[in-house]
Amino acid sequence: MRVAFQGEAGAFSEQAALDHYGGADPVPCESFEAVFEAVNSQKCDAGVVPVENSLAGSIHQNYDLLMQNDLFIVGEYVLRVRHCLIANPGAEKARIRKAVSHPQALGQCAGYLRRNGIEPENGFDTAGSVKALKESGALDAAAIASRRAAEIYGMEILEEGIEDNPENYTRFLAIQREPVVSRGEAKTSIVFTLNNVPGALAAALNLFAEARVNLTKIESRPLQGKPWDYLFYCDFERAANEPRAGEVLECLRALAPFLRVLGSYPRFQP
Amino acid sequence: MRVAFQGEAGAFSEQAALDHYGGADPVPCESFEAVFEAVNSQKCDAGVVPVENSLAGSIHQNYDLLMQNDLFIVGEYVLRVRHCLIANPGAEKARIRKAVSHPQALGQCAGYLRRNGIEPENGFDTAGSVKALKESGALDAAAIASRRAAEIYGMEILEEGIEDNPENYTRFLAIQREPVVSRGEAKTSIVFTLNNVPGALAAALNLFAEARVNLTKIESRPLQGKPWDYLFYCDFERAANEPRAGEVLECLRALAPFLRVLGSYPRFQP
Repeated sequence: MRVAFQGEAGAFSEQAALDHYGGADPVPCESFEAVFEAVNSQKCDAGVVPVENSLAGSIHQNYDLLMQNDLFIVGEYVLRVRHCLIANPGAEKARIRKAVSHPQALGQCAGYLRRNGIEPENGFDTAGSVKALKESGALDAAAIASRRAAEIYGMEILEEGIEDNPENYTRFLAIQREPVVSRGEAKTSIVFTLNNVPGALAAALNLFAEARVNLTKIESRPLQGKPWDYLFYCDFERAANEPRAGEVLECLRALAPFLRVLGSYPRFQP
Repeated sequence: MRVAFQGEAGAFSEQAALDHYGGADPVPCESFEAVFEAVNSQKCDAGVVPVENSLAGSIHQNYDLLMQNDLFIVGEYVLRVRHCLIANPGAEKARIRKAVSHPQALGQCAGYLRRNGIEPENGFDTAGSVKALKESGALDAAAIASRRAAEIYGMEILEEGIEDNPENYTRFLAIQREPVVSRGEAKTSIVFTLNNVPGALAAALNLFAEARVNLTKIESRPLQGKPWDYLFYCDFERAANEPRAGEVLECLRALAPFLRVLGSYPRFQP
């Protein structure tokens, strides 16, 4: 099974693809658009994209891409993000003066870098920074990335778990061309618009509350061409084809000028 | 009155500061943190920061900074964003091969650039790209920024209004150290947390719906250290000290473990 992910070999997204699809063949893509395109064009069987980090918040571009593509969410995976300080073999931690990585990874390790007198330097992505560091051969620089990235490029881990906040998780969605039928503990993701009238969102959320269908996430994104109108993305803990969820969706369809079910899928079990 | 904004002279934020605070002395700052810091430290009397663009969505960093600082929202301003293709005097449009600007501005003009065979190149900010272009003296390159940026640096506007979607607005908030008492058509911004129980958000939004207090915006941000718990930012059309709004806030306080009023202020009138 070919699974598209954004980044270089060793990226956290690749780890998520391998964990979620055991035995998959991960296919690196330059951008999130390219991941969706790889699945659309049948170059890959599935894609894995991050939608939210517990520290940084939502990755809005992937919400927009879910809306722009006719793919289905078929699974979710939550990855604990553990950053490593990675260097060329032979480097010593005391002599490291700068660390290159994706700006978000640098931000998540800002306290560690400050305490150790290491200057952060923006790079394109985490695993790509390891690759570039290897090519440079520098002994006074480090990269911040996953353990897997260090192993792939044959680099040394000077320290592991250098993130300032250990509660660092990223939620990924698995996308495919066909929906799955979800049994057991399921989740559903939907996207809808509402008429811009007072109380519209409260009325929509009430449908879920009254049916005791638990919403786990709500996210708003601008509606292009209609300033200050929004698309709402919601996740709830039910499959869309369960009677109670079906009734809520039917009532919501009466309120919402637009409603699309992005997919029902098994809830992530740690 | 000294008003801090992020960016260089000629930035859209500077325009918002000048429009909102007539006769102000705008003070450029390197980052959004620096804008908040300039107001905190009394270096400036006020600050103006963007919180949402009608195409790109919210600028989450400024929501986080509102929470991290003890300042008050005292006003809002909505700016129509009109991009210009700007070049050194003597340059011809037909010979422009690349355009430098902030990635978001480039994205907003992507269609125009493609149609005209101009390569986009990421720069630090819009007005800063004009300044750098002037220093380079290049005649085959352009920058994308405001009319004001072109005027400040004595540059030529090759074309105005090159954004793909004319419905391009940015909403700015004005922040000061002391709250204002708002009369007439007011708006209030609040931030709160909820217990992670089913229906909590619906119950909170219902308080507003039942009192017929119109919510104009809701935004969620991750709560640091508590994965998948959120801070909710809401704007509603009332001053916090009006009786009806006061009752809603009192009921909300009973539901919300944390609630802070960020400020009441006059609604923007175009």
